[in-house]
Amino acid sequence: MKRLTAAIVGATGYTGAELLRLLADHPQAEVQAVTSRKQAGEWMRDLYPHLHGLSDLRFVTPEDVLAMRPDVVFFATPHGVCMDEAERFLQAGCRIVDLSADFRLRDKDVFAAWYGMAHRAPDLLAEAVYGLPEYYREAIRRARLVANPGCYPTAVQLGFKPLLQAGMIARDGLIADVKSGVSGAGREAKIGSLYAEVGENFKVYGVSGGHRHQVEIEQGLSHMAGGAVRCTFVPHLVPMIRGIEATLYAPCAAPLAEIHALFAQVYADEPFVEVLPVGVHTETRFARGSNRVVIAVFKSVDDAHVIVSVVEDNLVKGAAGQAVQNMNIMFGLEETAGLPLFPLVP
Amino acid sequence: MKRLTAAIVGATGYTGAELLRLLADHPQAEVQAVTSRKQAGEWMRDLYPHLHGLSDLRFVTPEDVLAMRPDVVFFATPHGVCMDEAERFLQAGCRIVDLSADFRLRDKDVFAAWYGMAHRAPDLLAEAVYGLPEYYREAIRRARLVANPGCYPTAVQLGFKPLLQAGMIARDGLIADVKSGVSGAGREAKIGSLYAEVGENFKVYGVSGGHRHQVEIEQGLSHMAGGAVRCTFVPHLVPMIRGIEATLYAPCAAPLAEIHALFAQVYADEPFVEVLPVGVHTETRFARGSNRVVIAVFKSVDDAHVIVSVVEDNLVKGAAGQAVQNMNIMFGLEETAGLPLFPLVP
Amino acid sequence: MKRLTAAIVGATGYTGAELLRLLADHPQAEVQAVTSRKQAGEWMRDLYPHLHGLSDLRFVTPEDVLAMRPDVVFFATPHGVCMDEAERFLQAGCRIVDLSADFRLRDKDVFAAWYGMAHRAPDLLAEAVYGLPEYYREAIRRARLVANPGCYPTAVQLGFKPLLQAGMIARDGLIADVKSGVSGAGREAKIGSLYAEVGENFKVYGVSGGHRHQVEIEQGLSHMAGGAVRCTFVPHLVPMIRGIEATLYAPCAAPLAEIHALFAQVYADEPFVEVLPVGVHTETRFARGSNRVVIAVFKSVDDAHVIVSVVEDNLVKGAAGQAVQNMNIMFGLEETAGLPLFPLVP
Amino acid sequence: MKRLTAAIVGATGYTGAELLRLLADHPQAEVQAVTSRKQAGEWMRDLYPHLHGLSDLRFVTPEDVLAMRPDVVFFATPHGVCMDEAERFLQAGCRIVDLSADFRLRDKDVFAAWYGMAHRAPDLLAEAVYGLPEYYREAIRRARLVANPGCYPTAVQLGFKPLLQAGMIARDGLIADVKSGVSGAGREAKIGSLYAEVGENFKVYGVSGGHRHQVEIEQGLSHMAGGAVRCTFVPHLVPMIRGIEATLYAPCAAPLAEIHALFAQVYADEPFVEVLPVGVHTETRFARGSNRVVIAVFKSVDDAHVIVSVVEDNLVKGAAGQAVQNMNIMFGLEETAGLPLFPLVP
Repeated sequence: MKRLTAAIVGATGYTGAELLRLLADHPQAEVQAVTSRKQAGEWMRDLYPHLHGLSDLRFVTPEDVLAMRPDVVFFATPHGVCMDEAERFLQAGCRIVDLSADFRLRDKDVFAAWYGMAHRAPDLLAEAVYGLPEYYREAIRRARLVANPGCYPTAVQLGFKPLLQAGMIARDGLIADVKSGVSGAGREAKIGSLYAEVGENFKVYGVSGGHRHQVEIEQGLSHMAGGAVRCTFVPHLVPMIRGIEATLYAPCAAPLAEIHALFAQVYADEPFVEVLPVGVHTETRFARGSNRVVIAVFKSVDDAHVIVSVVEDNLVKGAAGQAVQNMNIMFGLEETAGLPLFPLVP
Repeated sequence: MKRLTAAIVGATGYTGAELLRLLADHPQAEVQAVTSRKQAGEWMRDLYPHLHGLSDLRFVTPEDVLAMRPDVVFFATPHGVCMDEAERFLQAGCRIVDLSADFRLRDKDVFAAWYGMAHRAPDLLAEAVYGLPEYYREAIRRARLVANPGCYPTAVQLGFKPLLQAGMIARDGLIADVKSGVSGAGREAKIGSLYAEVGENFKVYGVSGGHRHQVEIEQGLSHMAGGAVRCTFVPHLVPMIRGIEATLYAPCAAPLAEIHALFAQVYADEPFVEVLPVGVHTETRFARGSNRVVIAVFKSVDDAHVIVSVVEDNLVKGAAGQAVQNMNIMFGLEETAGLPLFPLVP
Repeated sequence: MKRLTAAIVGATGYTGAELLRLLADHPQAEVQAVTSRKQAGEWMRDLYPHLHGLSDLRFVTPEDVLAMRPDVVFFATPHGVCMDEAERFLQAGCRIVDLSADFRLRDKDVFAAWYGMAHRAPDLLAEAVYGLPEYYREAIRRARLVANPGCYPTAVQLGFKPLLQAGMIARDGLIADVKSGVSGAGREAKIGSLYAEVGENFKVYGVSGGHRHQVEIEQGLSHMAGGAVRCTFVPHLVPMIRGIEATLYAPCAAPLAEIHALFAQVYADEPFVEVLPVGVHTETRFARGSNRVVIAVFKSVDDAHVIVSVVEDNLVKGAAGQAVQNMNIMFGLEETAGLPLFPLVP
Repeated sequence: MKRLTAAIVGATGYTGAELLRLLADHPQAEVQAVTSRKQAGEWMRDLYPHLHGLSDLRFVTPEDVLAMRPDVVFFATPHGVCMDEAERFLQAGCRIVDLSADFRLRDKDVFAAWYGMAHRAPDLLAEAVYGLPEYYREAIRRARLVANPGCYPTAVQLGFKPLLQAGMIARDGLIADVKSGVSGAGREAKIGSLYAEVGENFKVYGVSGGHRHQVEIEQGLSHMAGGAVRCTFVPHLVPMIRGIEATLYAPCAAPLAEIHALFAQVYADEPFVEVLPVGVHTETRFARGSNRVVIAVFKSVDDAHVIVSVVEDNLVKGAAGQAVQNMNIMFGLEETAGLPLFPLVP
């Protein structure tokens, strides 16, 4: 079989680099081009010296990529880029997985309100498919344009999905207390992301003013529940590089055994979702470097709440890994092709 | 004024070492003795080589301490020790601050159920005062035996106290999602506390089966609220040494301005509690090495929940610092004497 | 082609777990059994819960393994075990890669002096091959018993080898200032390896009294140089899980260009050794999770010393990865089979 | 006694913040003003929110400070600022401790070569005193302008000083393999200082091209030795916030007991230098948050080299603490006033 050709637009950040790592071991796809307008002409290994001996790619421009007509183009760009670029790549016959937020929110006004810019490709917005395979797999198969979910929304949606679909919890009073490693903030020179600011420190953020992922989460949960869901979402920053843990709370009368059986059944055939046995707790390292999501379910001491803990690697299942999973689905490949399962422990 | 003499029973652990650090700079107290039955006769600096040039103490036995009749004895021992030792020290005229859990729970049956041992000093249990100065200051002043609160309960109680006392939240549906640095697990050789297990890893624990601090929290909150409070408590382990952050959730109709004003007023005269301005987020390092508790209050996006974030240093306000604060109160010293306010940032 | 069957004797530690991770993705080998005398009968995933959904192995005894007659047996055991077990496994037709120190030192008296035990299999010692493929590849091909090098010695030997073989440096006055992540200390419950002891802390160790790897290093360098080499070796502990960096110093008159050309030529065909361009510095993460060794060469400001910096992942090229590389060579497989090249960055 | 008034010019960085922390607890000095041209008018606590409740300072301009005529002005500015500002502050009767490199190098041409700018105050350069109290204490007492040493040079000079002064080592062949926490890079938004770049990573840097501290080190060592000293200096970055460890090597025939006795004697009366007993190893945390320098001495296994390990907190004895120590000496205060000895362990 002919190998898929792939391009990464905006490959200077962490998700771009992670796409390169994952696709390097993919048996049926290969990265043909990486772009950076600013650094066009430079070797990618000069930016990322760990690539010496591993990659011979030089940054090119998006126009160069267009000329190559790769099968699939990954956008690992800041918000606002893909909406301007998508049309011409689609015209050229490329299919797109967009790792930015441009096509995640169904409603362009909600997008405008939370991202501070008008949506400049509303027609494509209508066409785009939300790339959470565990919920939208069939639509992804046929999609030309997939909106890869945010890192937090992936964890929160997979944790609440079984409960909402089964009607085991109500649609309001949901709480998602979520914690992320710092690579989620990207490879940008910001004081708040410095080692001396983040190390030996744990902080809450984004509560005052709200976090953009809240609307993405509520949109997804509402779709699953068939009605408006309210979820209080509070993110925290953990002194580690990779990993997200979401602790989810909702009032719930069902007994633990029933809840656990539900999760086990819902995710029985999912290659990347592991439901732990009753009594085993999650750790973010269970997913380090892997595309897996690992879930544990509990009841509170007073038995009134269900507690779900979900872990993932924010750069893999929370970004680049899920993007490759979507690519696999879109092109009819084995869904697990090229995607690591085994985490790096310790 | 004569300087207070102090002894630390069980000084080989982190809280014992932290007591030594804090008391070394105390203007009116000094550590006369440190005990370790196992290491009696050895220099403390052989166990803690950072003490070379700073401490000339050798470990002695509790019996040696008894002979010295220090003004105050700190028990930094495992649970179950102080209940056996307290009586004879009180008889000798010493006052006691117990950093273990022996005298924290008012009900000896609850203690037995959660700590797996019968309470062997129920009379003293009746006499002991719970050492949370922001709530029990007057009783502490007169106490012979103070039960120093647990690290998590200190943060959770101080965060919910204003709301419960003002009746701004109901007595059930409370959630405390709490995160701690690993020094809270003590200086014990356990695989789960190894760097290679904890580093670059974030984990939930103690949900299945419950955590002992839950009952201590509910006891305190119920006292404040004047009726039984139910609080779901979920602890997590953060890859850092010091620090606790508690994110507290409760349904609450009051507007943010009113909530903030309440907190500001309740803690206006507290030397160790800082309420941040609206919009400023907490970070655990705001309390690193300091006896301060720093609090931020928020409302959820849908305005239905109050969200309180509380940070402290688990070894200071969560243990040794609060113990010294209690000592200061018990002996009529300036409450802030010898206690650091300025955190070590960065 | 028939897949190789492999067993891991002593699979409860980090090198055992790493062997399992690497062999899980190996195209021509598979782990048939893992042993732990203490935990025989238990699921490996109960010890390592990240294995839920990834491994169905239960611990068995070495005797169980013997009955299976796997093609290759990896000993990831404490020093002193393999020397007692090796003979019966060889008799059974298994080939052995020993990750402990039992067969690393050629001289049984030196072994006894540094490891505090007599060598109980001196005949096998004579037969064993030192498993550093970049130097002993041909002998490894034919070996029944391979002594996998220590983590520090791998880095130091590969860094000095070109210089010593080319006679560009003398045989004394060598200095190796070496730094390691804490997984090198193993998965043992030791206070010195606790997060609260290692985190935010950098320490020197093993200078007073000497470190066992010094003799292994000097043995290897002497062999390469054709005469006794003296190398001062000072190890340090870095607050990170994986990674070794060795900074090597030796008086050297040759100009940088010549030194760099030498390294480039010596390692041109080595699949796992990467020599960086002049001016690029090493970082341990360039090898995180990968079997690569990455090397940079410099001259000192006064041009009198050569400075070589070598990085590796202590659990991969410094242990389990090199063991698999040796297995590949012993069985005539592609040397790179199943071994990751791409590091996990960030 | 009248309290000293102090100002911090350039208080937005880590050394400025650390000066504020140390002076907050100083019994005889207080910070009257902090400057930042860019942020003049803003509260310092808006930049450093841990200061809420602890500091009421607003940033002012250097001109504002000039008008206040404080007793002492600390320059915590980038290189090149103090040389332009010093004259007018001295004219106003202030004494200066400069934490930048402007007045560290005696030779203006050497300064120009390494710092890429001409020296614009050569007359003051002649007057300035190098602020290493353990060597230049008497001169500091009378100085109007003290050049506070660099963090690395402090550790390296204190480690080699006894040996060079006693003639126990030669003046060439010295090696300093030095490791630093990342706060040494300052509070600047640089990609290389991000948590995701520095965490779980150890790297060598500044070898190609050389590091500015090399000339400062060689200048100081040459002065001590009475002749030109050559020292190869290689810095590394450790994934931690605070701390420097320097491992120093030099050929040396003297026995360990003699070397140790020398160090013990040289530093016997130094309040901030602790020489550990033979056999005890250094750890950077022995100095965390403290103004101490802790030293261990060893011989190599072949007895041919002396090995000295020196640790300090780069922000305290390596910067702000030493600056306060210099202030204490300049104004005839107790040298230890306001300076923490006890480290924050764990």
